[in-house]
Amino acid sequence: MPSRSTVSVAQYLFARIKEVGIRSVHGVPGDYNLVALDDVLKAGLRWIGNCNELNAGYAADGYARVHGISALMTVAGVGELSVSNAIAGAYAEFVPIVHIVGQPSLALQKQKKLLHHSLGDGDFESMARISQRTASKSVKLQCVNQAPGLIDAAITHCWKSSRPVSIVLPTDMVHAPVMAEKLSQPLDMLATPNDFATERQTADAILSALRTARQPILLVGGYNVRFTKKREVQELAEAFGLPVFLSASGRGIIDEEHPCFHGLYLGDCSDPYTTQTVRSSDLIISIGNIHSDLNVASVSWEFDPMKMVEIRDGLVQVQSKAYYGLNSPGLLQTLINQTKESTQPKRRSTPVTKTGVLNHDWLWPTLSDWLQPGDTVIAETGTANFGIWSTRFPRDVTYISQYVWASVGYSLGACQGAAAAIEDSARPGRRTVLFIGDGSFQFTCQELSTIVKHNLTPIIFVICNNGYTVERLIHGWHESYNDVQDWKYRKLLEVFGAERGSYQTYQIRTKEELAALLQNPAFNNGRMLRFVELRMDQNDAPSELKTLTRQIVTRARHPPDFRQGERGGPK
Amino acid sequence: MPSRSTVSVAQYLFARIKEVGIRSVHGVPGDYNLVALDDVLKAGLRWIGNCNELNAGYAADGYARVHGISALMTVAGVGELSVSNAIAGAYAEFVPIVHIVGQPSLALQKQKKLLHHSLGDGDFESMARISQRTASKSVKLQCVNQAPGLIDAAITHCWKSSRPVSIVLPTDMVHAPVMAEKLSQPLDMLATPNDFATERQTADAILSALRTARQPILLVGGYNVRFTKKREVQELAEAFGLPVFLSASGRGIIDEEHPCFHGLYLGDCSDPYTTQTVRSSDLIISIGNIHSDLNVASVSWEFDPMKMVEIRDGLVQVQSKAYYGLNSPGLLQTLINQTKESTQPKRRSTPVTKTGVLNHDWLWPTLSDWLQPGDTVIAETGTANFGIWSTRFPRDVTYISQYVWASVGYSLGACQGAAAAIEDSARPGRRTVLFIGDGSFQFTCQELSTIVKHNLTPIIFVICNNGYTVERLIHGWHESYNDVQDWKYRKLLEVFGAERGSYQTYQIRTKEELAALLQNPAFNNGRMLRFVELRMDQNDAPSELKTLTRQIVTRARHPPDFRQGERGGPK
Repeated sequence: MPSRSTVSVAQYLFARIKEVGIRSVHGVPGDYNLVALDDVLKAGLRWIGNCNELNAGYAADGYARVHGISALMTVAGVGELSVSNAIAGAYAEFVPIVHIVGQPSLALQKQKKLLHHSLGDGDFESMARISQRTASKSVKLQCVNQAPGLIDAAITHCWKSSRPVSIVLPTDMVHAPVMAEKLSQPLDMLATPNDFATERQTADAILSALRTARQPILLVGGYNVRFTKKREVQELAEAFGLPVFLSASGRGIIDEEHPCFHGLYLGDCSDPYTTQTVRSSDLIISIGNIHSDLNVASVSWEFDPMKMVEIRDGLVQVQSKAYYGLNSPGLLQTLINQTKESTQPKRRSTPVTKTGVLNHDWLWPTLSDWLQPGDTVIAETGTANFGIWSTRFPRDVTYISQYVWASVGYSLGACQGAAAAIEDSARPGRRTVLFIGDGSFQFTCQELSTIVKHNLTPIIFVICNNGYTVERLIHGWHESYNDVQDWKYRKLLEVFGAERGSYQTYQIRTKEELAALLQNPAFNNGRMLRFVELRMDQNDAPSELKTLTRQIVTRARHPPDFRQGERGGPK
Repeated sequence: MPSRSTVSVAQYLFARIKEVGIRSVHGVPGDYNLVALDDVLKAGLRWIGNCNELNAGYAADGYARVHGISALMTVAGVGELSVSNAIAGAYAEFVPIVHIVGQPSLALQKQKKLLHHSLGDGDFESMARISQRTASKSVKLQCVNQAPGLIDAAITHCWKSSRPVSIVLPTDMVHAPVMAEKLSQPLDMLATPNDFATERQTADAILSALRTARQPILLVGGYNVRFTKKREVQELAEAFGLPVFLSASGRGIIDEEHPCFHGLYLGDCSDPYTTQTVRSSDLIISIGNIHSDLNVASVSWEFDPMKMVEIRDGLVQVQSKAYYGLNSPGLLQTLINQTKESTQPKRRSTPVTKTGVLNHDWLWPTLSDWLQPGDTVIAETGTANFGIWSTRFPRDVTYISQYVWASVGYSLGACQGAAAAIEDSARPGRRTVLFIGDGSFQFTCQELSTIVKHNLTPIIFVICNNGYTVERLIHGWHESYNDVQDWKYRKLLEVFGAERGSYQTYQIRTKEELAALLQNPAFNNGRMLRFVELRMDQNDAPSELKTLTRQIVTRARHPPDFRQGERGGPK
């Protein structure tokens, strides 16, 4: 029997999960995690219970992007592999998920029993080795003395690296007693302080570059800075009066109503003022950017390194010189002690025409006035996350989209997770708004059922245009392989068991209809699930997306190096 | 320009795909495989276009189990990881799938561009390395001289090993010209002939064991013998008059109406005659078995090796002696040259009572008389694939289920693939019948839309009992984490765009209703999609499943070695 000073491994684990503020756990039950599920409930945590593991992973990602960190439970083997795409996405996009993997008992593993959910070779580590490739750290709990330390290390690493970790929990370890003593010390979630001399040296180099620059700007992305550096970025811009431009992933890091905000830098898809200002700048201070094609709108990230300061955790590059081992919040704080001044023009306006068939060029700017401060806005990869570049955000918006991993279907799962996280938060009344295309919706449609099951109240816009628009733009405009089956999307609510009166559905075909809907108090004020089918022309697409895909196609047709006689290539 | 004697890499690839009899290609379109999709259509192949990659993988698995081999197309990264669970399942279960992975162009890979669908590190091989772990062989087409040979090697390996392979196809290789010349030679799909001396020696050892045995039996499973050895197994049994028992995966390898068939051996779940006969046998010739827990009903595979002959491709074990490197069809053929005699009793009968609430103990035996010769029967992991142990199959049944990998949701995808394969076959009129639980159905529900899109006509029974029954039996009988949201399943047909009059739906609650349905000519003769909700009590389960899960629970509670003081274990 455990003595007073012990708790079970599961009790220890879920106490730590609660300590970091997680209130809902995502996942799917299975033979190798059922016993631990009892302890989820006993710890006072909500069990979400998704329809499948991949969707559960997407939901955990959405929860983490709102709350800061999340927890996910699957079984080994089948569950581990099904969720692997979501975990790789979280890795690529810097989202911290604590993934608890229920394994068969150590006793059975030791006997190399041929169990189901294995490759039938008695090797239980083969799947774990696969998921280790997509997790940032992986620990296996197989010794009572080490378990508390490993749990603590995994959770703190998850937070500090802002990347997913896995904790492997064999069934016979769930109730094994461990010393409770460590629980009296809170987890160390603070970043290691920077080395003073290095930080000073780096700050001096940046200040010196700033001093000689005629037209410095800040260019901010959402990678590796999502959770810790929002305040610092805003203060840095204010202190130096620096104009701030956001890349696609950076939206929400500075309010778009903030005087320092000047525009979205999206390569050739930017507005003319932004293109001109960013490209003529003689010093771009870039924070939290990955130079991936979608984040900065394709191939156009080609700034002169001598005009760049690149700030990321662990590596700061000031023109030609690199500085290692610094956390950016400390560095930014050190910089915030100077003043400059700056005023700049504003950009973009809401279109006026309100008649005719709904189209993308009208839709996205029109949404600007409808969004509210505090909204969490989620956009699926496709027409949505490119179209939304024309939507101006009010202050205090949380924006969720995948510009690096770009996994289709992600956003419906993420919407469920984000809505749960908001409900779990100190400000539960805030809205969750999802924009998703029909093809993407079909990937993960069953998560609408999870939203219904937990009475979550997001506003979901499904863009129904008969298929994969992004793919059409890249190749096969009229090809049937880019079509999807036309569903009666609104009826899914009833199929998935939503009670009559607990939700609203709409079908919109014209600008007038949408304008009326966006002003309809019943739609805006309802604290219930709202589901809107936007019926749009198959041949329509946001102009940003057309520009971007044109570049992608050109690049594919004229690969820069390839025509120099690469062996094996097309002639 | 390609000269007359060249074809593009894609033309070459799909010519080979057609050569092995594949007529439908499963998968999901994406930026890195769109160009190759044109060639699928041009080759006269049908593009299925599933709702997501995991489901596409399950469907390709189902197609391969009916046709013998199948083709699947996804993109690298997101697609590759999403499908990884299905590929691992095909590996574990010996199902040959040719997985074509569309990658970014070699030119972009060479530049280490930071593209979407990557981990943002410029490494395009990291995902490929993951999928290599679950494929049996992986080739990357990056040189025109080698591409034809690599394609041929991958497809023949897939067939001969009966396991999945991956062919990685960068976008700029799709239209690269290769020599067409090899296409005039058909692929070598024949197994390498056995070494004569080894085969003779092994056959002699088996014959000698058979000669001295008083009560020899055949015990046949479905692994590694599914596609090549059905005829030989039947002839072997006839030649020696050996009673044949099938393990769970082996159903369909010998007709259950065949005089040599004596029963299903399912450990403690077997009928008394089978238990007695198998356990008292002094020589068990086991063909195509994996000793996994579900295949032979848990921990009960504990036969004395000295009473066993174990035949698998590559390794034959005759009592204490091992023989390597033999293909089993050749070996079996060598054995089929002797005669013995045998007659044995039959087993199981259809229950008579036909009133009251539908329950498992009545359902499964009742289906015996309804199944028809030529049916393809698919059973999901759960109440279905254990309950069906009580269903007697008519002759010529193809049976599909996962007893090793046991991935929940698999069977709806597999049903779509199997139904397509039957339509593509020489006997397209045969029925596809699926039995699936509600929780499992929710994992992959959107594939019902793909079934509708292609006007496929399976008969689908959904067992609606409010959740994960297998999990309940293992742990948490009344716990909410084993519940699922109650859906109006039948209405999904309309939501997914099925035309009125193109399908039938039913809801069944009693034995009388089901008995009437099974005799209803409109139900039995309709060449259309039929969808039956079986509303069953949440507290009911097949007795086989109860027996099996009781063993699993007992084993988990009393791990044999663990209580001997294993470090870190529960006290």
